[in-house]
Amino acid sequence: MDKPTLPKGTRDFGPAVMAKRQYILDAIRQVFKKFGFLPLETPSMENLSTLTGKYGDEGDQLLFKILNSGDFLKDVDPRTLENKNSKELTTDISEKGLRYDLTVPFARYVVMNRHDITLPFKRYQIQPVWRADRPQKGRYREFYQCDADVVGTYSLLCEAEIILMIKEVFGRLSIDDYTIKINHRNILEGVAEILGITGQETALYTAIDKLDKIGARGVEEELVSKGFEKAVVDKLFTLLGIKGDNISKLKSLTKVFEKSKIGKKGTSDLDGVLQLLQQSGANDDHVEVDVALARGLSYYTGTIFEVKINNVAIGSVSGGGRYDNLTQAFGAKEPLPGIGISFGVDRIYDAMDELGLFPKETQVSSKVLICHLDKESMQYGLRVLTELRNENIESEIYPDQAKLKKQLDYANKKSIPFTIVIGSDEVKSGELMFKNMVTGVQEKLTKNVILEKLHAG
Amino acid sequence: MDKPTLPKGTRDFGPAVMAKRQYILDAIRQVFKKFGFLPLETPSMENLSTLTGKYGDEGDQLLFKILNSGDFLKDVDPRTLENKNSKELTTDISEKGLRYDLTVPFARYVVMNRHDITLPFKRYQIQPVWRADRPQKGRYREFYQCDADVVGTYSLLCEAEIILMIKEVFGRLSIDDYTIKINHRNILEGVAEILGITGQETALYTAIDKLDKIGARGVEEELVSKGFEKAVVDKLFTLLGIKGDNISKLKSLTKVFEKSKIGKKGTSDLDGVLQLLQQSGANDDHVEVDVALARGLSYYTGTIFEVKINNVAIGSVSGGGRYDNLTQAFGAKEPLPGIGISFGVDRIYDAMDELGLFPKETQVSSKVLICHLDKESMQYGLRVLTELRNENIESEIYPDQAKLKKQLDYANKKSIPFTIVIGSDEVKSGELMFKNMVTGVQEKLTKNVILEKLHAG
Repeated sequence: MDKPTLPKGTRDFGPAVMAKRQYILDAIRQVFKKFGFLPLETPSMENLSTLTGKYGDEGDQLLFKILNSGDFLKDVDPRTLENKNSKELTTDISEKGLRYDLTVPFARYVVMNRHDITLPFKRYQIQPVWRADRPQKGRYREFYQCDADVVGTYSLLCEAEIILMIKEVFGRLSIDDYTIKINHRNILEGVAEILGITGQETALYTAIDKLDKIGARGVEEELVSKGFEKAVVDKLFTLLGIKGDNISKLKSLTKVFEKSKIGKKGTSDLDGVLQLLQQSGANDDHVEVDVALARGLSYYTGTIFEVKINNVAIGSVSGGGRYDNLTQAFGAKEPLPGIGISFGVDRIYDAMDELGLFPKETQVSSKVLICHLDKESMQYGLRVLTELRNENIESEIYPDQAKLKKQLDYANKKSIPFTIVIGSDEVKSGELMFKNMVTGVQEKLTKNVILEKLHAG
Repeated sequence: MDKPTLPKGTRDFGPAVMAKRQYILDAIRQVFKKFGFLPLETPSMENLSTLTGKYGDEGDQLLFKILNSGDFLKDVDPRTLENKNSKELTTDISEKGLRYDLTVPFARYVVMNRHDITLPFKRYQIQPVWRADRPQKGRYREFYQCDADVVGTYSLLCEAEIILMIKEVFGRLSIDDYTIKINHRNILEGVAEILGITGQETALYTAIDKLDKIGARGVEEELVSKGFEKAVVDKLFTLLGIKGDNISKLKSLTKVFEKSKIGKKGTSDLDGVLQLLQQSGANDDHVEVDVALARGLSYYTGTIFEVKINNVAIGSVSGGGRYDNLTQAFGAKEPLPGIGISFGVDRIYDAMDELGLFPKETQVSSKVLICHLDKESMQYGLRVLTELRNENIESEIYPDQAKLKKQLDYANKKSIPFTIVIGSDEVKSGELMFKNMVTGVQEKLTKNVILEKLHAG
């Protein structure tokens, strides 16, 4: 029998890791709830007709597909098999795929439940997604997304509240050094317009999105190789080079967009978002208007966001934006405006781990272990255990007759902070040995005093 | 564009359902933690080599298999394709499957991490599982299991604590009318031994497991048709007919097992479990020793459990048992004793729904909505909103300028219990209209008084 293994790009989360993951998930969930978002869960599997064509060609390749049950080859055209055409056969033998993100299932849900939903509809969703990507640092084949989306309003307050939520989540997690980059699809369209390259936006976005990775020179080369004129590229870099705080950047851009209505719509939106932040008593710390932010997903139509934790070699840990046409892909008659943010728990975890930001007290064990020296002591211990649990204290008793050393070792290895040791003396006197496993201090105390101490800390 | 649909046997959980599901999951999780179990999560996908052969032939059929990525047909033998042999092709084009239960992945985890685990190891795991079963009432293709298992001890205290946990979970959920059936594999073996049919246990178990469904007559017919002698079947029914409370049932059985050592091991274990319950200050209410309980899964070796909620037409909502050899399937050298219990959230949900047991106050919305009559009032409202959220009150502001009626409708439809209405008068005076949406009572109050009221309830 071979030693069992895990599928590539997947992980087990043991108790210690789970406690830290839970710490991150709880922070995000609490902030979502505080901002009035309600929970939704969708199935892990969706029909492939729901998933395909929503994430671009590359996305379609990365979908995990589920083999139909039973004799799936029965009705397949023998010629498909003869040709050994995997792609063609896939549509014959697979109808379902695993969730690739949480946004498309959400749009599908909204369309299917349009008449039962009160708009604006604010939902949060915390579930795993799957991508058949090549695994590497910070990239897994199964990972959790935490999304909050609003549909049914064009209000810029949604944009402002996304920034407020990001700030609060990172504040709760004690992550201080991070940047929320924001941009607007209309600004990118405005840039294309004043550069005179309307219609070639995709090539433009794809190139400037790589600025972080391949530098200005690399982007320049890519654009020239794609046939953009040198003068156009130079003008682009003048725009990307606009400096200053967010307000003055937006002012400069608005001037540049004097003749671009669409561009001005973009700067005016971002200006409105910054004003709403201020009206909410917040400021634009951590926020950086960045004309070079493009974000790959093609469904965005307005403001886009991306969050990076500084000084760690991990990609963006959160991102999102406004999409005003997503439900139309599912046959919704009227366009339903939407906007959302997604937090990547796995990358936040990796970053916090690297930066040593997890609090030490993240509890991963029971609070107390009852140890016993003989059969009668164990019976006595069972009653003590029941009383501890009646007081909601997470507690356990060593389940076997064993040497005290073995029982204390168990507590130490599992980082259980307190033990109660019971022998025949303790059974007689009712005073039990209570030991702090961290300091080593032990004292004989009555049950009630022990209960008080456990409640206190 | 066709209206989107969900894959057969899967469901969306909207906010109202989520709140109730969360209520059940929280109760189970809290009990697991209180009893000293620690969280574990395993990947949704496992290698098929991990999953197959663990759940019997029927189980293997019900595994959801994942199509390999890329050109999966490339290296397939053309003859497999010519024969259109789905079963044979499956092993060539699929390496991974979706989790079928939480016990096998747990055993796989224990074997892979044997040297880092402190024994006895108590873990809980709450995750979805997938089965390509025919969907019907109470049976879904994706559903949650909540498992708690201990490995590394033969102590009967584990059995007793499983009963205590079941009682506490059902108590927390206000489910009063339920039965915890218990039996022991050794009792079933003892029965086979005294009936003189050792070696034919499987046929025996399979038949008596159907007692609830097909009745005594049906079981009798099935056994006779399988070649069991009438005298044997009669003797079996005498045994199954043993009446009385648990203690006297076990006494009668022990007498019957006078010459069956294995049978006596079974009754002695169950007797020990009942004693431990008593020593823990509990009793055997809801517990019923049932010689006809067999449970399908072949890996059980000791005590087995099954829980039914009475007066609802839903199968068992919880089940488990002791398995002493599960890790050996993954190449563990020494047998590692284990025991576990699994709660089925989806069935518990259906039963509670049918019995009307969900508390009304299961909150599914923000606590307060801020409404506003003009632009200035909205700006004022933003500051109020920030103060509410700073006090951790789940709150939202209507994001658009809209008629008051529309804003109040939104609060009503979403069951938001309180609204704060702000107009120019309120901005001037600082006294805000605070409305209880349930009673309809409204009064002008200062922000601080409103905060107090919201904290109070």
